[in-house]
Formats: sequence, structure tokens, C-alpha cells
Amino acid sequence: MIRRILAADLPAMAYAGRDHGPGDDAAFLADPGIVISTDLSIEGVHFQREWLSMRELGRRVSVVALSDLAAMAATPVGLLLSIALPSKDTRHLTPFYDGVGDALRESGAVLLGGDLSRSPGPWFADVVAVGRSLKPIRRDGAAIGHEIWVTGTLGGPAAAVRGWLDGEAVTDAARRSWAQVAARTDEALWLADAVSPSALIDLSDGLSGDAAHVAAASGVALVIELSEVPVASLAGGGDVGIDLALHGGEDYELLLTAPPGRVGPRTVEFEARFGAGLTRIGIVEEGEGVWGRSARGADRERLLRRGFSHWEEEGT
Amino acid sequence: MIRRILAADLPAMAYAGRDHGPGDDAAFLADPGIVISTDLSIEGVHFQREWLSMRELGRRVSVVALSDLAAMAATPVGLLLSIALPSKDTRHLTPFYDGVGDALRESGAVLLGGDLSRSPGPWFADVVAVGRSLKPIRRDGAAIGHEIWVTGTLGGPAAAVRGWLDGEAVTDAARRSWAQVAARTDEALWLADAVSPSALIDLSDGLSGDAAHVAAASGVALVIELSEVPVASLAGGGDVGIDLALHGGEDYELLLTAPPGRVGPRTVEFEARFGAGLTRIGIVEEGEGVWGRSARGADRERLLRRGFSHWEEEGT
Repeated sequence: MIRRILAADLPAMAYAGRDHGPGDDAAFLADPGIVISTDLSIEGVHFQREWLSMRELGRRVSVVALSDLAAMAATPVGLLLSIALPSKDTRHLTPFYDGVGDALRESGAVLLGGDLSRSPGPWFADVVAVGRSLKPIRRDGAAIGHEIWVTGTLGGPAAAVRGWLDGEAVTDAARRSWAQVAARTDEALWLADAVSPSALIDLSDGLSGDAAHVAAASGVALVIELSEVPVASLAGGGDVGIDLALHGGEDYELLLTAPPGRVGPRTVEFEARFGAGLTRIGIVEEGEGVWGRSARGADRERLLRRGFSHWEEEGT
Repeated sequence: MIRRILAADLPAMAYAGRDHGPGDDAAFLADPGIVISTDLSIEGVHFQREWLSMRELGRRVSVVALSDLAAMAATPVGLLLSIALPSKDTRHLTPFYDGVGDALRESGAVLLGGDLSRSPGPWFADVVAVGRSLKPIRRDGAAIGHEIWVTGTLGGPAAAVRGWLDGEAVTDAARRSWAQVAARTDEALWLADAVSPSALIDLSDGLSGDAAHVAAASGVALVIELSEVPVASLAGGGDVGIDLALHGGEDYELLLTAPPGRVGPRTVEFEARFGAGLTRIGIVEEGEGVWGRSARGADRERLLRRGFSHWEEEGT
């Protein structure tokens, strides 16, 4: 994954004092309480044109950026949208922006600006999401004994991507679960208020990958009870389903940690309010990394982050 | 120019009340006094790899974004840097980030975050610049009778680009004027304090193009005294020089308007402080658009924005 190269090669630079720089899902300017995130979506890397309509594409690149604000429990303010596209495709801009408008209306955010250019190659979108929060929830607060919870179900969007990459038929329901994914904005704000999570992150890289971010930032081990992971029915059953739920990615659900007993009493209210589940999937323990515990009990197996080949660097 | 298509196709969206959305160089969030801008730089569209070193590239994409903050007289806070590059080029990331570090040190800004991906085609960089200002200077305040001023000299960077596009030899001085261009950050902050410009913009599209933005936003005509335009010696003399200065672009100098008599008394101080000229080049008149007035007096000729072919959309 190319992100690893970034971490290795980034030269020492001055970072703002109380502000947070790279590491969380978004940058945080403490003084005015502004959260800013940026997300690349590139044709042939993050999506293929056949996978979704232009309107879905405009909405999805916006949702992915907005999800970074949810990951820090920030209230969306606006987007800046930089797009490069081949000259021949300018007729697609109207439905694309219609989709951006869909995401803006869903989130209550506005279009703040952007840039537009010709691309000599693929479609390229970089979406900047700007939010407000005086006290964003970071990924570094998970403490030993805290419970691990996730929203919704996992593995549905990844089932569609795996189907496309394997050249298999993809059902329309699976396609929509990927192409029409939503950001858990309202859910994040409610959770911040109702249960004060000790750590929060959105699941873009997959449960194993994003749990590893929380574990590394917090200096703890996250132990997942594999039988408790809410596998989406679209992901199928058995090993395939749990594999997609653990490693597939692109769910844009939320993972949070909280002191024991704090979240459980609020799950009924959460489900009634948002029509999605809130599931306890594990516990924070001493150590490092992400582990899976099977139903047999004490056995723990290291869950290494595994991604789809189209996300990975080839030859490096 | 593809920007025109954007303006035509952008659906009506809600814009933030007191905040400024698309139209200025950067978005302005009035409440916390935050200015945010985003700039695309794409290989084969905005630059060719042979034109500059990787370190110069990293610095230049950052400077271009920082110049948008200067255009609104905002104080730089930080950058978010989204980059996509071919897998084989990851060895270039270290000098590229060294160049980003150069721009950060020059401006006093810090790296706040970003994204990194593989590109299936060219290098893409989208740089978000974040600044602070409680009262940014916009481009819509030029009033009839106000003087028009520019910093520095114009046409040097464009001379290099024209040379490359025409397959001619480019001197190292011309190459450096393009590859090592600087943002007029300190100059903009000083001007905001010293002369309270009625309108301010940076010259990225060229004098004719950016003056047209000020004219349109302010509802006035900008009349340029052609003999007063400070043509860079690198741009050459005669018609070629004035053409590059008027239409070449990529100078990243500042254009400002101000009530008569306000700027003149401060030019000596400006030049002593910044080692660059501050030149009165015209007057704001009733009407619309940008006009050139020759030495012969009353004749006015409409200056239409003309760009280099590599900036333009082909076939649209």
C-alpha cells in the first residue's frame, strides 16, 4: 500500500502545536474548531466507470470525504471539489454535480469551492471536507478494558468489488451497497453526545485495517470476537462472508471504543433512530495489533490487514 | 477553458450565508475566519516533468496553492496535499516532499494532512491551502476611479513555457522564473495593512484574464495603460514581451485596486521591503471587461483573455 511509503519518506516538518496534523482521518485546527480532510478517488484505482452512474460517482466521492468528518464526530460545513476529466467527458459533469448535490443535501453541507481541469488520462477527484467541532473524537483514546462497537453491517460493498474483480455477476443490491454508500454523519454526532466514545474511526480500509489504526494510535491491542462481527447478508455466509467483513473495506461504517457498560443501554435507541444496528464486537486488551478470537474461547489469531489487489501497489 | 463549462453546468446549490463560496480564489468561512483554497497540478496539463526537478515540483504545487491565500490577504496556516503518482515513481517522493517542505518553511505554514494514491496515468497533485483572516480582501471591490497596481514584473515565467511549447531553447534564468516562482504572501499582508486595497487577486491566468475576474466581480471596466505594464526582461521587448505580460500567466504576482493617491506614497517602502516593484498600470472606469490604452491616448482596445494552447480544452 502506497500510504506506507508516505510514512517512511515524509521528511520531518513542523506540525502545528495544539493542532493535529497527519495521522487522524482529518486535520484539526483547534483554535477555530475546524476539521479538514481530503480524499482522492481515481478511475482505475478506486473505481471503474462501469460500476456506477455518473450521478452515483459524484455522490460517492463526496460521501467518502464526508465520512472522514463522521470519523471525528465533526459537523459537516462544506466541500471543495477538485476534478480532472478527459475533454470528451465534459457532458458528464452535470449528472456528476447532481450527485455531489445529493451528498450535500443529505449532509447539510454546501459547496465551498474547488478546481477543474482537463485530465490527459483517467477521471481524478479530490474532495476536501470541512467540518466544525470544538472537540473531535480521535483514534488514540482506546484504553484496556474498553468495549469495541461497530455500526451497521460489514462486507456488503466489498462483495460487489470482489465480484467485479473476479469477473462474476454482481447483483443490483450488492452494486448499490457499494455505489450508494452513505456517511454515518448523524450517527457519529449522536454517538459523540450519547456515549462519548474513547476512540472513533470510519471503516474505509476494512475492519482489520482500521482497527489496526486505532490499536497503533492508542498503544493497545484490539481483540475481535469473530462470531460477533455483523456480516452483511450480501457478503454471504461462512469464511467468505467473514473475510469480506474483516478485510473488504469501503463499508464507511463507524468503529468506536468506550468504557464497559456505556454503549449497551443505548443500542435500542440507536437502532430505532437510525435503522441500523450497533454491535459489540470485542474488547481492548494489553498489547498491540488486531486479533480475532474464535468461539472456542481463549485462542487469538493475529488479523493482518489484507486488501484487494486493486488497492495495492504492484511491484513495490 | 474547462472552467467555463463548470460555471454553465453547476446546478443550483445552497451556499453558506455570510460565507463565500466559489467565485473568489478561496472559500471563506466567516465565523472562525478561515480561508480555504484548492489547486490542481497535473502532469501534461499544468507541467511537464522535464521542466523542473522533483524538489521544484513539490515546492511549486505548494506555492501555487499558497498564492491563493495571498490573493485574499490571508495568513497561511497549513497545506493538505493529495498526490497520485505511478508506482514506478515512488522513489521521487522524498525530493518532492523536500520541495513541499521548502514552500512550508518560506510561508510559515505546516503540513496538515493529505492523501496518497497510485495513479494509472500522470502525476496528479491537489493542494489545499488553509489560511486565517477575519476580513479577506475579495475581488469585487474595485470602484470607478480607483487605480490599478501590480507587484513585480510580468511575463517571465510565460516566456519559459512558450519556449518549451515552441521547442525553443529556454535559458536557465527563464526556467527558474517559472519553476521557482514564489507566492507574494508577505507582500499581500503588508498591502492589506498599508493601503487597504479595494480588490486583490493573484495573477495565475495572466493579467488580462485575472483583471477580467476583478472587472466581472466588481461590475466595472479595468483599463490598462499598456506602456505602464512592467514587462519582465526575460519576456523580451516589443510585442512579444507585452503579449507575454498581458496573457502569459503563471506570474503569481498580485493585482490590486485602491482609491487614487493611496498606494503611490508607499511604493518606495514596498520596494525597499520586498525588493520588487509596485507599479500603477491603469484605472477603473465605468463599463465592463478589460481594456488596453495605448500611448496615443484615448484609444481603447478590448483585451480578451488568451491563454496557451496547453491550458485550453481541445475540441470543446
